[in-house]
Amino acid sequence: MSSKAIAVLTSGGDAPGMNAAVRAVVRTGLSHGVRVMGIQRGFNGLLSGEVVEMNLRSVSDIIHRGGTILYTARSPEFNTPAGVQQAASTCRSLGIDGVVVIGGDGSFRGARDLTESGIRCIGIPGTIDNDIASSEYTIGFDTAMNTAVQMVDRLRDTMESHDRCSVVQVMGRRCGDIALQTGIAVGATSILVPEVPYDFQKDIIERMRFTQKTGKKHFIIIVAEGVGGVEKLAQDIQEATGIESRATILGHVQRGGSPTLRDRVVGSEMGSVAATLLYKGKGNRVIVMQGGKIVDLDISEALNMKRVFDKNLYEIAHRISI
Amino acid sequence: MSSKAIAVLTSGGDAPGMNAAVRAVVRTGLSHGVRVMGIQRGFNGLLSGEVVEMNLRSVSDIIHRGGTILYTARSPEFNTPAGVQQAASTCRSLGIDGVVVIGGDGSFRGARDLTESGIRCIGIPGTIDNDIASSEYTIGFDTAMNTAVQMVDRLRDTMESHDRCSVVQVMGRRCGDIALQTGIAVGATSILVPEVPYDFQKDIIERMRFTQKTGKKHFIIIVAEGVGGVEKLAQDIQEATGIESRATILGHVQRGGSPTLRDRVVGSEMGSVAATLLYKGKGNRVIVMQGGKIVDLDISEALNMKRVFDKNLYEIAHRISI
Amino acid sequence: MSSKAIAVLTSGGDAPGMNAAVRAVVRTGLSHGVRVMGIQRGFNGLLSGEVVEMNLRSVSDIIHRGGTILYTARSPEFNTPAGVQQAASTCRSLGIDGVVVIGGDGSFRGARDLTESGIRCIGIPGTIDNDIASSEYTIGFDTAMNTAVQMVDRLRDTMESHDRCSVVQVMGRRCGDIALQTGIAVGATSILVPEVPYDFQKDIIERMRFTQKTGKKHFIIIVAEGVGGVEKLAQDIQEATGIESRATILGHVQRGGSPTLRDRVVGSEMGSVAATLLYKGKGNRVIVMQGGKIVDLDISEALNMKRVFDKNLYEIAHRISI
Amino acid sequence: MSSKAIAVLTSGGDAPGMNAAVRAVVRTGLSHGVRVMGIQRGFNGLLSGEVVEMNLRSVSDIIHRGGTILYTARSPEFNTPAGVQQAASTCRSLGIDGVVVIGGDGSFRGARDLTESGIRCIGIPGTIDNDIASSEYTIGFDTAMNTAVQMVDRLRDTMESHDRCSVVQVMGRRCGDIALQTGIAVGATSILVPEVPYDFQKDIIERMRFTQKTGKKHFIIIVAEGVGGVEKLAQDIQEATGIESRATILGHVQRGGSPTLRDRVVGSEMGSVAATLLYKGKGNRVIVMQGGKIVDLDISEALNMKRVFDKNLYEIAHRISI
Repeated sequence: MSSKAIAVLTSGGDAPGMNAAVRAVVRTGLSHGVRVMGIQRGFNGLLSGEVVEMNLRSVSDIIHRGGTILYTARSPEFNTPAGVQQAASTCRSLGIDGVVVIGGDGSFRGARDLTESGIRCIGIPGTIDNDIASSEYTIGFDTAMNTAVQMVDRLRDTMESHDRCSVVQVMGRRCGDIALQTGIAVGATSILVPEVPYDFQKDIIERMRFTQKTGKKHFIIIVAEGVGGVEKLAQDIQEATGIESRATILGHVQRGGSPTLRDRVVGSEMGSVAATLLYKGKGNRVIVMQGGKIVDLDISEALNMKRVFDKNLYEIAHRISI
Repeated sequence: MSSKAIAVLTSGGDAPGMNAAVRAVVRTGLSHGVRVMGIQRGFNGLLSGEVVEMNLRSVSDIIHRGGTILYTARSPEFNTPAGVQQAASTCRSLGIDGVVVIGGDGSFRGARDLTESGIRCIGIPGTIDNDIASSEYTIGFDTAMNTAVQMVDRLRDTMESHDRCSVVQVMGRRCGDIALQTGIAVGATSILVPEVPYDFQKDIIERMRFTQKTGKKHFIIIVAEGVGGVEKLAQDIQEATGIESRATILGHVQRGGSPTLRDRVVGSEMGSVAATLLYKGKGNRVIVMQGGKIVDLDISEALNMKRVFDKNLYEIAHRISI
Repeated sequence: MSSKAIAVLTSGGDAPGMNAAVRAVVRTGLSHGVRVMGIQRGFNGLLSGEVVEMNLRSVSDIIHRGGTILYTARSPEFNTPAGVQQAASTCRSLGIDGVVVIGGDGSFRGARDLTESGIRCIGIPGTIDNDIASSEYTIGFDTAMNTAVQMVDRLRDTMESHDRCSVVQVMGRRCGDIALQTGIAVGATSILVPEVPYDFQKDIIERMRFTQKTGKKHFIIIVAEGVGGVEKLAQDIQEATGIESRATILGHVQRGGSPTLRDRVVGSEMGSVAATLLYKGKGNRVIVMQGGKIVDLDISEALNMKRVFDKNLYEIAHRISI
Repeated sequence: MSSKAIAVLTSGGDAPGMNAAVRAVVRTGLSHGVRVMGIQRGFNGLLSGEVVEMNLRSVSDIIHRGGTILYTARSPEFNTPAGVQQAASTCRSLGIDGVVVIGGDGSFRGARDLTESGIRCIGIPGTIDNDIASSEYTIGFDTAMNTAVQMVDRLRDTMESHDRCSVVQVMGRRCGDIALQTGIAVGATSILVPEVPYDFQKDIIERMRFTQKTGKKHFIIIVAEGVGGVEKLAQDIQEATGIESRATILGHVQRGGSPTLRDRVVGSEMGSVAATLLYKGKGNRVIVMQGGKIVDLDISEALNMKRVFDKNLYEIAHRISI
């Protein structure tokens, strides 16, 4: 069974690389001889009718752009049985029998619900936080971290000139992956993540004092959003050590920017695989990275997985950032 | 009268391009056959004796680095008659009869005081804020603004994807130049600077509504640090317009980073001119940009000048960012 | 006398910041209540009829993009009396009585010819080479140089790791400004420009040997396109010094990229001033930077000026890059 | 059996991220209570005696720097039985009983030879080309590709403004991975790699004509160094299509620059694992990425593996870059 028309939407927070995925869905769909529609502003577009026909040129010159050309939004109305029914009905009236949903776990639950209403959906993990248990990698993660690293590299210059300590909050509410990898990449003396409780004296102050004795005079502490409290932490560090300390919240800047190569390539590959699955009549799947490869899983199975924090990498960070 | 030894220090907040100026002072001094000393941590180094001899290679591979290899600090002890006397005495004991002081107005006052104690000083404007009345340009200004622009360009991606308004605080306590030029460069709907009072309805809300009618759905408001209040402003905008609004404080990230070409070139030129002036026996001067050229002025004269805000450019911004 | 409609075109090589100028022309024109047309592919658009009406949103989200949304081209057909007559006739039929021409000297000659045929023109200097005698600054110059600097900073890493010499060709056929300022900014041991003849032994080899004795092991030589011959030069250097030497031609990469703040701001200011001049009934002018300020000159007068190479800055480069 | 002293060297072409690996080796070694030596200029340092003791601060502030602080070189003298004997003898006299060798296949053969002479070696894949059969990833690959992507994104601006075709040569002599992933990331119409023969008409001209019919006017062709011939190719394309075509060789710029997050993190992890293996008395191993994980293999086994080109990704590129 092959598709008459497929569609693609981006949902939840935007992430760099979503455009690469949208482009790959559109062009792969068209290469299979299938019509492709773009749904705007997430699932909302299926309620408001913001759906446009896409052709090869609709996705020209977007692979290098941040954000999403389809826009994105949260969609409380869709998250009701009536909303899902209406969305499915819109799809049927437009001849759409399959939808690629690019977003996070919440979006995948929407994809599952819509599949159950008869419209086959395929999820693609698009979120800068890397907080999807079923996939080793989510689109946007690499760009967000490289942005954070570039910003902290700038902070380092001024911290070093003034012999200061910089306490930097990076994104990641439930997931410390951005903090962990950014922390390693910038040589942070301490990295605080939601997955691992920390002891102020042992994990921060003692490490700073130890490296201070070896001659280091400026310090970077990376804190995940889910740990938070960077203003207070900077004050506490200054009081405990006498080293002038400043807090910085990197904020939404981490969401934007031209995607890195990795987000463009992974986005392209996932988008293409998703469109081909829809074309082949598959549904209720998510595209994920496992063992470094792009594979697909059942959505419900994927949603039930538990994230595993990379303790090994965390210990390496502890060992070398000193 | 020629110098036996000259010295160079960086003072106040660090600024990208200070290293270019330090390098140019050192190498120009050496090219004149003069010894050159590096004073560390601003005027403090003259109190603590943190002074090192510089050679051609001491300043290798630094022109592209942010911050200052001489470190910088505020120096309350120096700002007393006794402090100045001690600093002058240190200079004499080290054979230093001229000092290049890279920093802001406060540092220039120190340079004047030290000159009056018998050590000829030449000031170079090094501060990201462009807040020195006597000079059209201060070292670090271009890098700081380009950093701000790159960060707001990233915010734009995510604001556009979500149809949001972004209220962004950039540096500039007394001086709105960073805000003005950054605002023009990112196409900000409104630019708030300390030099011009603003009317919330007329200067923000009405402009947003006007452009909204022409089809625009995402907005950037740039606010100088000296105006502040971005969190409140974002809330007020959201209430008044219904457009989801987010505040971002760019912070110290603007201070660091590899200097732009302009800061490297202007820093090099100012540093070289300053060292040559010292070599020729001049003192109590500041190097400034006037009419696009590098010239020198009497320090006291320079300190008495009044800054003039570029109203003309401000009006152009108002006209085209709509 | 005020305009019914004005138009804007970009001509010759593209330059980052042209979009800022186009945007400023369009919005300033509209703010004066004048219709504004966009002419595509330079003067060609007036022959082929590629002219589109512009509104406030036609120039949204372009200030940060490289290239030119109006496209550009050389136009041999226009450079004939018949071509100019046809272009003027197209303007009259579309109600266009003034045109802003963004480009280099060749484009300004076209602007003068078109003015003589009754269509008032205003030139804006847009070319990365900074090769327009009448203006201290041309739009695109700052971005091109910062791109070159970033690329040479990358080369520096690998040259340093291998103790090599890198001979790098940057843009600038008749004008050595890109080479001079880029050379200063990257700390080039020698800078070769078309304006100053060089002696291989004295200006390259002796300088390399001198710095080698002070401990330097890697070298950068910057060569303007108008001097050329970098492959041969790299071989000659390697033979003369025994230091492994590599040639790199940076090429068209220097033309593109998101414009720097300076090119966005200068482009905005020049574009706005040009549109206001047209609105006020002026013509046959070019907008230039003189003494750091934006002013306007008679086109023919501007075209007759002679470029002056900054010998002073060249000597500073010689003194400090050692 | 534990080590008395271990050492680290970088060999072959430099790659961004080598410093992260060096830093991780040094600090992990020290954390195990082992002395760590830095060998300069590859295996040469073992012949010339350029070996320095490293401490925690020897590797401060290097994780964000391109190149390698240990310098690198080819070493024909080492590649003889006498050379290997002398190197082993140097190690013994310095108390070094294990060496981490960061480089490519050639360096791994050196590591194997040195192991056979009694000095346990561990290899780490450091080369921008990703041309090591045993590892899915080599340090420097991500940075080199992101640099290439940023440069081609700049070219795109100017190609688009002029309706041109850009033929770009990227690094990769035997391995098309840089070309393949860069080509996907920039939306190249054709990607030429050494692993897949190409047909000029079918793989380039017909694809250009097809997309031209859909409205596309500017084109990017990515060519691996191992395919080469970009000047000729640009001419042929221009003749066949009438579209103005330009060749660009990106060159050594791709080698340098501040490493991306990925190269910093993978470098850190591989370096740390290698030092711990040496500490535990292991030798003759290489650290590789397999299935997305960092594992170790026997060197000889690794050297005998055959590279497999990712045909699947190549076909996706073909499908979506149109």
